[in-house]
Amino acid sequence: MKLNDLPTNSTWTLARRAERMNPSVIREILKVTEKPGIISLAGGLPSPKTFPVSAFAAASAAVLANDGPGALQYDASEGYGPLRQAIADFLPWDVDADQILITTGSQQGLDLVGKILIDAGSRVAVESPTYLGALQAFTPYEPEFVSVPCDDNGPLPDQLDVARGARFLYALPNFQNPSGRCMDAGRRDALMNKAQEIGLPVVEDNPYGDLWFDAPPPAPLSSHWADGCVYLGSFSKVLAPGLRLGYVVAPKTLYPKLLQAKQAADLHTPSFNQRVVHEVIRDGFLDQHVPTIRALYKQQCEAMLAALDKEMQGLGVHWNRPDGGMFLWVRLPEGMSAIELLPKAVERNVAFVPGAAFYADNADHRTLRLSFVTSTVEQIATGIAALAAAIKDVTP
Amino acid sequence: MKLNDLPTNSTWTLARRAERMNPSVIREILKVTEKPGIISLAGGLPSPKTFPVSAFAAASAAVLANDGPGALQYDASEGYGPLRQAIADFLPWDVDADQILITTGSQQGLDLVGKILIDAGSRVAVESPTYLGALQAFTPYEPEFVSVPCDDNGPLPDQLDVARGARFLYALPNFQNPSGRCMDAGRRDALMNKAQEIGLPVVEDNPYGDLWFDAPPPAPLSSHWADGCVYLGSFSKVLAPGLRLGYVVAPKTLYPKLLQAKQAADLHTPSFNQRVVHEVIRDGFLDQHVPTIRALYKQQCEAMLAALDKEMQGLGVHWNRPDGGMFLWVRLPEGMSAIELLPKAVERNVAFVPGAAFYADNADHRTLRLSFVTSTVEQIATGIAALAAAIKDVTP
Repeated sequence: MKLNDLPTNSTWTLARRAERMNPSVIREILKVTEKPGIISLAGGLPSPKTFPVSAFAAASAAVLANDGPGALQYDASEGYGPLRQAIADFLPWDVDADQILITTGSQQGLDLVGKILIDAGSRVAVESPTYLGALQAFTPYEPEFVSVPCDDNGPLPDQLDVARGARFLYALPNFQNPSGRCMDAGRRDALMNKAQEIGLPVVEDNPYGDLWFDAPPPAPLSSHWADGCVYLGSFSKVLAPGLRLGYVVAPKTLYPKLLQAKQAADLHTPSFNQRVVHEVIRDGFLDQHVPTIRALYKQQCEAMLAALDKEMQGLGVHWNRPDGGMFLWVRLPEGMSAIELLPKAVERNVAFVPGAAFYADNADHRTLRLSFVTSTVEQIATGIAALAAAIKDVTP
Repeated sequence: MKLNDLPTNSTWTLARRAERMNPSVIREILKVTEKPGIISLAGGLPSPKTFPVSAFAAASAAVLANDGPGALQYDASEGYGPLRQAIADFLPWDVDADQILITTGSQQGLDLVGKILIDAGSRVAVESPTYLGALQAFTPYEPEFVSVPCDDNGPLPDQLDVARGARFLYALPNFQNPSGRCMDAGRRDALMNKAQEIGLPVVEDNPYGDLWFDAPPPAPLSSHWADGCVYLGSFSKVLAPGLRLGYVVAPKTLYPKLLQAKQAADLHTPSFNQRVVHEVIRDGFLDQHVPTIRALYKQQCEAMLAALDKEMQGLGVHWNRPDGGMFLWVRLPEGMSAIELLPKAVERNVAFVPGAAFYADNADHRTLRLSFVTSTVEQIATGIAALAAAIKDVTP
């Protein structure tokens, strides 16, 4: 019996797609790392210091006082009108509110996109590496994944022909999870020109775009080719993930199918949460709040980079220097495996996520992901020193 | 171009399953009925009078004051532990908390069940009529629906052989949507004996079971055959639907796959909402609150029955007398169609849902669903009089 199989005498018969589903690799890894006193550079949890608890408290009270019955009743599957309008207003390209579908976190956007666009055996192009949660959302719809070759600047436009005929390219252009990389303006131009040339639609995922350190990233891919892009946004990193509030921007031709899929999936995103978030953001709160997140994460990223510069000297380890987001991408020297390194690191009280989990195919086992947002500056320094010691442990 | 097709020159290619998805019939019908002054006996919205707004306000404040960071952070896909335990404790058969999966409304439970159990072309058995939202949730997974013949007491056990080999029977035993009918204890015994005999698993949906008028319904189907049943529950009708909080109780063999599907679908149900609902219910609130809902709905149901008795005399119209829930089921005289009646009713300022929408096949066009929960006693009296007048309009 494999890990996920039912007993052979079971009354239940699983769908074929269920056999493709697996426990989250990260989740399993994180279980290994659950020991007291460990410094986790593994998880992707925003720092709770950044959660505007009192703003949520005030907004919850106001929403229930002003529109309790509305906030507690069933709602339109499209989402709460004023929130959809606010999103259309703040997006940096021309978007109508009726293109906005509010989702239960942007993870749901990935599921809905997969549901309406992926057939068993159809091809879906992804970056290399790519976001694990997207692989998990798409996998039940049984696509064949095609990894587009990438450099530190994202997918290589002249390699995009490998994705010809795919249902879409899934891309995360801003401070990607897991790599932290950001596509520059030239790459976006070239990539989108090529995508349009070969008729390859793009699903653009942007949870981290607002978390820039010194300058905002270039314009979204969707602004280059609105009819050929679906865009996913989220309030998880600029407000809090526990509300599960995201959104999809879809071309008007595609919107009705996404809406039907949404309705079948959970009728609508909680009415209360939509009104609370709208209440929080309506008077420009994000303009004051997001800079405080940027400043905190920048400081923590700099602490991690300084610790890496100091501790990894002479070990043959490489890493990038993100301009925003939550993650940094490390590559171990030749012959070393991040999966094999992990237990040694855990012995020394530090955890990370091996990069192999983030590849649809041809995983680079030398890579690993470090998060700089959950731990303090002091924990980061201690954690990176422990990681360097673990690398020395396994260095021949 | 059909209603849902993409333009033929579209960049996008839809999945085959998307072609099966359609706009909600009810939604389209309700658009027709949106005119000022109309009395809607159509929608399935709980009465907002029953929403405990101040309890939610107090709970929201308490949750954010006591555990703001936890309520706003990512959470386990299984759901909030204390809420899972509370649910296991109040269910009337032996359930472990680790069999409980918190879902974003019980509609999501239907989607997840469909995702892991339905293959294209596999058979799914449903009642006749059945809940439209379940048909919508299952349809994208491309089953062949099999309607099990029913009487006023639910599915006929000696007819269950038509469902042999189906992936499951979807059943709503308590005050069914749309018919309001409730299976008695004998029927439950006979049905579950037969299901177990032929190895037919059951997906039991119970959103309305707590809304009984004089006596609670018999024990759940799941209590007869725990390993062969998945049970779906909801807080939408006993607290409020706008929080989108439901749950699945699954056999331990099936739980891991449902959990993986949940994780892929939206990571987890909002942390905040789970804690708020737990805070509301933790000290026995439902024991005081739900009786007030029962009393209100019973009164309104009695008003509807009295109005039907009075207004429908001699018209050849039949209806049932529900013992709970939100709906009542009406059958028009031979030769009459509820779909054709609807515009006449709307002209007379009353709306209902034609019953044909609730059949997977062989729709009975003479049926219609009336909701007695959203309108006041006075509106119900006026609405039923208007409906009787509309029926007279179309009587030859």
